[in-house]
Formats: sequence, C-alpha cells, structure tokens
Amino acid sequence: MGINGVLRPGHAQIRVLNLEEDAKFYREVLGLEEVGRDAQDRVYFKAWDERDHHSVIIRQADKAGLDFFGFKVSDNATLNKLEADLNAYGVKTERVPAGELLATGERVRFTVPTGHVIELYAEKKDVGNGLSYSNPAPWPAQAEKGIAPTRMDHALLGGGDLDGSRDIFINVLGFYLTEEVVAEDGKTQIAVWLSCSNKTHDIAFVRAPEDGKLHHVSYWIDTWEKVLRAADLMSMNHVPVDIGPTRHGITRGATIYAFDRSGNRFETFAGGYISYPDMHKLTWPIEHLPEGLDYAQRKLHETFLTVFS
Amino acid sequence: MGINGVLRPGHAQIRVLNLEEDAKFYREVLGLEEVGRDAQDRVYFKAWDERDHHSVIIRQADKAGLDFFGFKVSDNATLNKLEADLNAYGVKTERVPAGELLATGERVRFTVPTGHVIELYAEKKDVGNGLSYSNPAPWPAQAEKGIAPTRMDHALLGGGDLDGSRDIFINVLGFYLTEEVVAEDGKTQIAVWLSCSNKTHDIAFVRAPEDGKLHHVSYWIDTWEKVLRAADLMSMNHVPVDIGPTRHGITRGATIYAFDRSGNRFETFAGGYISYPDMHKLTWPIEHLPEGLDYAQRKLHETFLTVFS
Amino acid sequence: MGINGVLRPGHAQIRVLNLEEDAKFYREVLGLEEVGRDAQDRVYFKAWDERDHHSVIIRQADKAGLDFFGFKVSDNATLNKLEADLNAYGVKTERVPAGELLATGERVRFTVPTGHVIELYAEKKDVGNGLSYSNPAPWPAQAEKGIAPTRMDHALLGGGDLDGSRDIFINVLGFYLTEEVVAEDGKTQIAVWLSCSNKTHDIAFVRAPEDGKLHHVSYWIDTWEKVLRAADLMSMNHVPVDIGPTRHGITRGATIYAFDRSGNRFETFAGGYISYPDMHKLTWPIEHLPEGLDYAQRKLHETFLTVFS
Amino acid sequence: MGINGVLRPGHAQIRVLNLEEDAKFYREVLGLEEVGRDAQDRVYFKAWDERDHHSVIIRQADKAGLDFFGFKVSDNATLNKLEADLNAYGVKTERVPAGELLATGERVRFTVPTGHVIELYAEKKDVGNGLSYSNPAPWPAQAEKGIAPTRMDHALLGGGDLDGSRDIFINVLGFYLTEEVVAEDGKTQIAVWLSCSNKTHDIAFVRAPEDGKLHHVSYWIDTWEKVLRAADLMSMNHVPVDIGPTRHGITRGATIYAFDRSGNRFETFAGGYISYPDMHKLTWPIEHLPEGLDYAQRKLHETFLTVFS
Repeated sequence: MGINGVLRPGHAQIRVLNLEEDAKFYREVLGLEEVGRDAQDRVYFKAWDERDHHSVIIRQADKAGLDFFGFKVSDNATLNKLEADLNAYGVKTERVPAGELLATGERVRFTVPTGHVIELYAEKKDVGNGLSYSNPAPWPAQAEKGIAPTRMDHALLGGGDLDGSRDIFINVLGFYLTEEVVAEDGKTQIAVWLSCSNKTHDIAFVRAPEDGKLHHVSYWIDTWEKVLRAADLMSMNHVPVDIGPTRHGITRGATIYAFDRSGNRFETFAGGYISYPDMHKLTWPIEHLPEGLDYAQRKLHETFLTVFS
Repeated sequence: MGINGVLRPGHAQIRVLNLEEDAKFYREVLGLEEVGRDAQDRVYFKAWDERDHHSVIIRQADKAGLDFFGFKVSDNATLNKLEADLNAYGVKTERVPAGELLATGERVRFTVPTGHVIELYAEKKDVGNGLSYSNPAPWPAQAEKGIAPTRMDHALLGGGDLDGSRDIFINVLGFYLTEEVVAEDGKTQIAVWLSCSNKTHDIAFVRAPEDGKLHHVSYWIDTWEKVLRAADLMSMNHVPVDIGPTRHGITRGATIYAFDRSGNRFETFAGGYISYPDMHKLTWPIEHLPEGLDYAQRKLHETFLTVFS
Repeated sequence: MGINGVLRPGHAQIRVLNLEEDAKFYREVLGLEEVGRDAQDRVYFKAWDERDHHSVIIRQADKAGLDFFGFKVSDNATLNKLEADLNAYGVKTERVPAGELLATGERVRFTVPTGHVIELYAEKKDVGNGLSYSNPAPWPAQAEKGIAPTRMDHALLGGGDLDGSRDIFINVLGFYLTEEVVAEDGKTQIAVWLSCSNKTHDIAFVRAPEDGKLHHVSYWIDTWEKVLRAADLMSMNHVPVDIGPTRHGITRGATIYAFDRSGNRFETFAGGYISYPDMHKLTWPIEHLPEGLDYAQRKLHETFLTVFS
Repeated sequence: MGINGVLRPGHAQIRVLNLEEDAKFYREVLGLEEVGRDAQDRVYFKAWDERDHHSVIIRQADKAGLDFFGFKVSDNATLNKLEADLNAYGVKTERVPAGELLATGERVRFTVPTGHVIELYAEKKDVGNGLSYSNPAPWPAQAEKGIAPTRMDHALLGGGDLDGSRDIFINVLGFYLTEEVVAEDGKTQIAVWLSCSNKTHDIAFVRAPEDGKLHHVSYWIDTWEKVLRAADLMSMNHVPVDIGPTRHGITRGATIYAFDRSGNRFETFAGGYISYPDMHKLTWPIEHLPEGLDYAQRKLHETFLTVFS
C-alpha cells in the first residue's frame, strides 16, 4: 500500500565521445556534481538535490547514446518479486553484481522490445544533498553551480516496438500511461508517456526506425525563471540548443532541448501537473503534435522525430 | 506495485459561520469553482485542475472547523482491504453510503486518536478540469479567477494524541514520515508531516491542547509569482493574512497563511521538493521551529501554535 | 533639468486589413482596452497601466504597416522648441490640429529620412489606469484580460537612411544611443537602439531595403512568467509566433515576436537593464547578431531581416 | 532636452561599527563587489551591473548611520549650474576635491533641512559591469555571488523639515513627486517619494523626530524570485529581517527590509511601475499607510516609523 514498487529513475549511463570534455560539460555547464570514477574509467555524477550516490554515469565510446537506464525499487523483496514477474511475463533477466556500479547494490537487467537495456535495483548509498538532515537550509551553494538541475528526471527512448516496451512497463512494472500521441488511424501510438509516481513521466517511448536509441535524458529545474537561466548558461557555454525555451503542450512542462558535447540530447524542464493513476489519459492526435511539442510556436521541429543518439 | 493504496487528499468538509459569505469567499477570492449544493445545504467546490467532482465542501454551523477530511484510494478492493486493516489495527469504522456526498461513492469513516474524522473512498465522478482530454491547452480561463489554486493539497490537524494518529497513517494507511518537529527531549514529536505520494505532505499533525482541531487546509498554486498574486488578491479582498508571503524551512514550500470569512486558516503555497519513501526524514529540533515556520524571518509567530478552528 | 523634453512613445497608428478582426485581436488577445472610435472609423486602445487616453490606434487599409509613431513631450513650450529645433536642423514639420486624434492636443508631424512619419505632442487626456490616485491597489482586473501588457513600449522601424533618422533623434530630439549592430566594416550601423529615458530603447531603426517599414511595435509585460503566459495565450488564440520565447542579447530583454491578424509584427517583452545617457554604448558586430537576437539559440532567424509590414 | 541634470543616486557612505565584519557582510551576503580601500580606511563597493567605480562606501564609526548620499549629474556644466541654482535658492554648498573619494571627480556638497548631507558630482570612473561592451553576455558570474543586487537604487531619509528638503529636490534639482503619505489633515506630508528618472523614487523622505537619520538604503534585484532568494540568503546568514518578503502598496515594489551588521536598515526590492513627470501623484492617507507599507498584511509594522540609524 502507498507508494512502492518502482520508485523512480535512478541512473542513466551515457556514452560520450571525449570523456574529459563531457565530464567538464556535465560538471560545469549542466552543473551536476562529480562524485566518483571507477576502474572502468566511468565518471559518476549526481544532481544536487538527489540524495543517492549518483544518477548519471558517462563513459568513453565511439558512438554516443545510452547504455542503460535504471530504476530504484522499494527494497530487495520488491526487486526479487519484479524479477520473478518479468520472467513470468517472458522477459529474460540477468543479475549485475553489487558494486559493479559504485555505491549500488545488485541490479536486475533486461532488454525491452525497443532494444533498450533497463535495470532495477534496490540499493544506492544515501550520500545526502549537501544539507543537514536536521533543520536544513532550503538549498546549498551547489544549487547555483551551472544549470544545476535538482534531479535526473526521466528519459525519452526511441525504438520500433513501442507497444512491447510499453506493455512491460504497464503490465509488469506498475507504470501507468499519462499521455500519448496517436497516428491518423486514431489507435497506433507514436509516443507514450509513462509514470510510476506523481510525475507526468518517469519514462517515455517514441516510435523510431532504429532500436535502442536515446531521444533525451531530462533534468528537472524548479522554475521557468531557472529555465531562462539555463538558456543563458547554454548560450554562454556554446551548447547547441535544439528547441526552446518553450512550453510542451504534452505534460505542460516548460522546456529546453539541447545537446551535450557528444550529441546526446538532454532536456532541462520545469512545471507540469501532478499526476495520479486514476486520471484519464491525455491524447494528442498526430496533427496536434506541433503544439504538443512546442506550444508557443505550434511547430513540429523536424529534429524531434529524426535526431537520436 | 507502483502508486496505489491511498492516492491523495480528496475532500475536506469545513464549517463556516455564514454560508453565503463564505461561499462567495471560496468562489470569488480563493477562486474555487462552485460545482453543486445538496439537500443538506452544503456547498461544493473544486479547484480548477482537479478532475474529480469536488474537493471542498462548506456547511453552515455555529462553530468553524473541520467536519472530516477524506482520501481517495485506488479502487473498491483497496477500500475494503484498508477497512479490514483498520479494523484489525483496532480502529472502528463505519460506512457512509454512496451519494451522501454528491458524485461520491461509499465512504469508510473513522476517528483517529487526535479526534479527527477521516474518510476513505474509491469513487468520485471525473468531471474534468475544463480542458479537453484530447490535445488540451495548458490552462483554462478559470485558472485566473481569484487565487485559483490548482488543487486542495493537504491539511494540518491539531490534537493531543499525535502519536496515535500518526501510527494509523503510517502502519495501516501506508503513509511515510517526511519531516518532524521534536521537543527538547529529542524524541517527543511536536508535529509530523506524512505523505502517501511524492508530495512532502498529504496530511500533517501538530500536538495541540484540544482534540479535533483544524490548523489549516492548504491549496497548491504553481509558482512563487502566483503566491504574490495571491497576497495581492487577499489584500484587495481584505482577507486577514496570518503569516507570509515567506518560505517554510519545513518542506521548503513558499507560503501564505490566511483566514476564510469564518476564521478557518487556509494556506496557499508553492514549491518544495519531491519526496520518496526511501528518503531520510528531516528533523526540526523545537528551537529551530522559527526557521522551520518562517525561514525568511526566523520567527515563531505566536499564532502558529495557538490559533486553530 | 531632470527628465524632460521627449518623455516617451505615446501613440502608434497601425494599418490593418480587417478592422473588426484586428480590433478583437488587440482587445481580447493582446488585451488592450478599447477606449474609443472616431469619425474616421479608427479604433483606439490603451494598455492597462497607461494613464493617457490611448496608445494604439488601428485603421482599416489595403496594406498593413505603420501610419505614424508619436512621442509625448513635457509641455507645449517644449513642443514649440523642438519644432523650431527640427526646422533649424532642416526637417520640415506640419501641425496636426488638436482633436484630430481623440483626447490629444496639437501634434507636430515630420518625416524622417527612413520614410517614417513621426509626431510630437504635449497633451493627451489623463484617463487613469483603472486604479485610484489615492491608495491604489497594485493592479486592476484588466491586468489579466488577455496578454495585458502594461504599456506600448517602443517600435523598431526599417528603412534605408538609418543614419539620417538616427541623427535627428540624437541631435535634435535628445535621444542617446544605447546599442548598435555594426557591419563587417566595423562602422556601418545595421541597427540602432535609441533612448530618451531610462529604458534601453524608445525607438530603434534597422537598415532595410524599403523605406517606411514597420518591423514591430513592442509591448511591455512585467515578468518572464508573464512572457510564458503570453506565449500560451498566443497559442490558444492561434497567433503566429515568429521568434521566442527567448532572450535578446541586445537589451537583455525576454521576448516573443508574433504577428497581429494583418501581419504586423508585435513584441511582448520583459526585463532588460536600466539605461542612462552616460553609459558606454554596447556594440554587436554583425557576426554576433544571432545571439543579439536570440540569445538562447544563437540563431539569426531569417525573418528578422526580411519580414516587415 | 532628454534625460539630463541629476541622473541617479551614485553613492552612499554608511557608518558601521565593525569595519571588517560589515565589509564581509556587504561583500559576501549582500553580494557587492569590493572595489577598493582608501587612506581613510574606507571600503568601497559596487553592485555588479553598475558601471561606475563604486556606489557604497562604508567606514568605521561609533554610531551607525549615513554620512552622505550622492547623485551623479550629466556633466560638469550641469554640476556648476546646479551649484549656482542651489546657492541662488539659499543653499550653501562646498566643494570636495576630486579624488577625495576614489575614482570620483569634484563633488558639490550641501546639507538639506532634514539634516542630511547630499552631494552632486559629474565624474566617476567607468569600470564596467564585468561584461564586454561588445556583444556582452546578459550577466556575469558575479550576478550570483550573494544577494547580488544590480544597483544601489535609492535611500529613504528621516528628519524634521521634510518640506524643506523636498522643495530643494523639486525646485532646484529637478526631481518630481511620485507618491506621498499625508496626515489626517489631508495636507501635511508624512513621507514623500521623489524621482529624477523613470524610477518611482531616487530619494524619499519620512518625517522623523530626529534629523539626519537613515531609514534605509535600497538595492534593486531583478525579480520576485530573486527576492525569495535574497530572503533565503538573509536567513542562511542570520541577517535580521525587519519586514517582508511582501509588496509595498507604495511604488508597488516587492521588498524585504533587513539590517546590516551594524543596524543600518537596507532594502532589497524588485518591481514597481515606470514613472514619468507628467503622471498624477499617488496619495496615501495616513490610515492607508499599513497597506502602503505591507500590502499583503495591511500592517503598519511598528519599526517602520521608529527605527532609524
């Protein structure tokens, strides 16, 4: 009872083309805190208001993109139950041993039909958010270093069998659908937004020609004023902006899409509504995708459906 | 799995001294939508972004205060299970028939040790938020009529046996404790904030000399700029402001406390952090209550611990 | 001594293709107050926080564009002196009789080298801003009807002999240059921003192939949050957005460019810095115009230099 | 013609009880930049967006308060003319040699009837705002160090002969009255707000029992969101807050009053309306001073009329 099962997006491992250049980007421009490096030369980051050890991991590779995306679950009993449920549903899983990611317990790993590697885990070390657990200040100095999102919030992933991935998240992992884009036939989903919480999305999928693609990893910032500050910092640091600042019709969030140094799209966003599983889903017929994407301009920026990493 | 059990605060029935005067207040100043009246002469309101039929009910009485506070649960199976759990825990319940509140299903009612009447229910009619479920605009005209909170968010209740009420919410109803004020002894809780969601609180209790008291019902508004707008509208309408605008250290929320026409305190607030059940609780030793209450002024306004309805 | 001479932009007469359609646009979408119509069938509007009778006049025509742009001066002595100064500078003037525009005194009219008709006048009736002159509230209900700018703020005009127009404003009318875009030669000004106040611009010119063109009339709104609200209202009302929301590097203002029902570009903007005549001018070499225009995207939107009315 | 004569408040010399403690306060909490010290051991500060060398000077003394408040004028001819005008009006002046204040030209000094020392000067070295004069970014890193106002904005001074001081500012220095608080007799001014610009006030006077008193020096911050940030920083640094955050009815500004380490009140404020000399003054009958001071709470905080330094 209450809030349990899958709690939230917990980590994203992202491939970058030049480790130090992007480490600097994630640290100084995006304003995540570098919290560690491991023997595989991966660099770990956390957003300031996250309390778990890290949420973003980058590693050097020949090709940008997403290695895996992980969700924290309530506890180990839940982890075991969800693994059993996945197996019963026909999803093969494997266990990644505790410690393979710094400060992280054992992970259950599986591949969803869109070709993305998803992980579940129950344990990641609480390192705090830089504020005391007794009469804390509302924010620490770190909250103003770079764009400084409060958290890694969600990812939008692209692949072919959207229905297959969606079903696993809904039928096995306890997510519910909040919004959808549907094709001219009024049925085929072009994109789906899925939540395991009161957020409008914890993960989203868009139908894409190639499997296993990353559309964007999204970071939460508190206000529209900080969205403008993010835009300023992006420009000051010559970060290529894709779309925004604007409002998404979908989720109502205020957004900027931009690219890290390796071409991985990321989003800084704020706002939106509080979501509950008993709420009627919102549907965007494909002809309304322009305002769903960019409510101000009612424009379907071409990159939205074509640029992935 | 996922988000289930008790979903959210769903309704508060508030006693007022002059029905039409307060109906006007809730409608025109607070900016709730009047959605109906019943045979008992109760007036029903909803906040614009709520989709269920109503969230606030007022009725004429000789004494201000709170009749009952209700939570929506996932479904009828959950309702039955929670009732059984309450009974097993030693809490007597009664059933209020469907329809006793407009557009609302059967309710399970019980009294917690602090003397408050709490209700659970699974059904309240979805009447929408004034926007289409297909490609909706981000907000309707109603969002600018009066203070216009998006939702009734939580209540702070006062009574003697805080521990008893807290335990029912935590042990039976699946809430978790997010923040607490503790006495000089380092143990006795003076106030507790409890969540069944990603909000920092869905209900809170403060130790008070008299049972069954209402400290405030709280309404969510989206931004600090709208907190200022709320302050302006309160002043324009000669609403007595108790505290604020300021920030609470506790929950980080930006707040105004004020009173309806009958002396029931209400809050309009924005901000705060996202909460999860695996997060370490935050503790405010009583000597830090001043900044917990009014972070800007670090002032324990005397009314905070003394004025209830 | 003090603030005197030319005070501020006071009126803009704009040509529209369908009077009632644009009257509705200026009234309901832009949120100006319709304050009168005259025998020539012109429709007059004021922004809510302006106290003079009107600031925007629209009239039916075959071609969109700007008829004239007028500035209020301190008093009639100033009007006479400025007319004499203009004549002495070689600028021919004519007098338009009091009352030709509703509630407006005699106007001195002249054409600047870029082909624009400019007016000066000393008298326009104070009709108030809807608030009392004794203990006023901070804003009236009108402040939330439509986009509801507080004032008509400035215009950007296009024409060939930018230098000629600039010189009249600086040498005769007492304006000073705040910012400029300069060509590759480091000297030729492509655009100039001119102020007679503490605003970063009261009028601006851009070098354009055709004379007498309107780039945009600009309206001030108080905050970046209201810029987002303006974007929402534009989209809800199917107003074509040209650029934004974004920040201009030039003037630092937060902006949206969009078009009225007849294709006249308008701007809603907020922010920027306070300007004084002793401040060093800011120069934007043409290769930096992209960030001068759209700081977030560092993009020279093609329409900026090509679309006029 | 245009904007000339007295341009703006340019410097305030403030007495503090412990130089290093307050130097640290002005530098790290208020977030001014320390720009120099002189042979008299005075410490000089500038706000980040000011371009002149400094605006605030503090010096060690036994008693807190204001030594003098200076205004920059257009040029030396203006300085000479204003001195002649002051003398002709019966105000004695003296010259303080160039260089007595760092980077500052010759000053004309005089005492107004409320007992305050006022200065005029034409020259203070332009040291820039940390941004280039060619294609500048919208803000530098310094804009986020401490509260970081963009400018020293105005002062409110207390003394007996308010009428005498007011007349000099209006009749000789070219200021105009924007708002006033009047006593029960409907005539006697309790407080006056005076502008030499488009700001609602460049200086203000309140009738006080003792002459030569400082009510507060005020610093401008750009937004209401930054007012909250200022409140947070004040609390984090244990700065005693007097009033706020709230909105003044008078000038519409959003405000916090607080005290430096020596008990000099200062204000951080944002917002308000644009002012012109042709605008009708706004009058606050004394019984409306509560909402004039604290619009949200409609409360005449006792300190407002009693605490000066």
